[in-house]
Amino acid sequence: MDFSIRAANLDDCKDIARMIMELAEYEKVSDHVKVTQKDLEQDGFSKNPFFHGIIAEVPEQHKTKEGHTKIGYALYFYSYSSWSGRAIYMEDLYVMPEFRGKGVGKALMSKVAQLGLAAGSHQLNFTVLDWNKPSVDFYLSQGCFDITTTMGYHCMRCEGEALKHLAQL
Amino acid sequence: MDFSIRAANLDDCKDIARMIMELAEYEKVSDHVKVTQKDLEQDGFSKNPFFHGIIAEVPEQHKTKEGHTKIGYALYFYSYSSWSGRAIYMEDLYVMPEFRGKGVGKALMSKVAQLGLAAGSHQLNFTVLDWNKPSVDFYLSQGCFDITTTMGYHCMRCEGEALKHLAQL
Repeated sequence: MDFSIRAANLDDCKDIARMIMELAEYEKVSDHVKVTQKDLEQDGFSKNPFFHGIIAEVPEQHKTKEGHTKIGYALYFYSYSSWSGRAIYMEDLYVMPEFRGKGVGKALMSKVAQLGLAAGSHQLNFTVLDWNKPSVDFYLSQGCFDITTTMGYHCMRCEGEALKHLAQL
Repeated sequence: MDFSIRAANLDDCKDIARMIMELAEYEKVSDHVKVTQKDLEQDGFSKNPFFHGIIAEVPEQHKTKEGHTKIGYALYFYSYSSWSGRAIYMEDLYVMPEFRGKGVGKALMSKVAQLGLAAGSHQLNFTVLDWNKPSVDFYLSQGCFDITTTMGYHCMRCEGEALKHLAQL
């Protein structure tokens, strides 16, 4: 299938916001999404951005019935491991259902890997929902490993009132 | 106990490297540590740093028998959640064994929370090893929750030859 992969820009935020919601619906947590197109514009495309994006796009003749040509995305940011140094974190990887199985997800993830290596990163980290078997299988097939299962790492979070309380030492 | 919390600077990298190794020894993975003092100096204290640090320090009269006054640290970087926006990630939190139980860890983590909130972050994320019960209990007591157990998130990693292979699409 004909598609292209490129860095996201400000004009992509509307489609990224749409696809974030589609991904959350797939993950059954769409009520958790608070991020808006405007947030993405401010947080990803101003000085000192909090994240970067990559877009997968198809030519006009392959657009969806709703008229979308931007059919996948990845969000990433640079991170750090105190053991192995520079790293890159992939926050999201998403391909619209009708374009799956054609190498788009792998091309997006490959681009994240390229950008990580180019910045001197030794690790690509991300999370996956354990019930999302197609994604787990895809990642394992790419040589990724599950450090929750193999090493016992659990993801922890503090937010809302607990975060405010923690900050008030 | 008398201690102070402050932003890490270039001169702290020797002690941070020492304490990273102590933490890895506690986590039984000291052979995994590749990061050197020089890496920390380059990656944390040049333009566009990959991480930031916080140091806990005691007065000279409370120094360890080896002469250390820097007795704890946290490493963090800014991150992003596609659901809730700006976030902060705590890579490490460590207090030397003889200074535990005196509020140093909480003070370090509180500082990370403050910095996150000041930057407009809504989440503080980190990982913990499931067998490290004192740490798990501490984090839960602070209102943090385990999104691996409650939501099924697993931490995934790609590195080494697999990462290079992934980049060669």
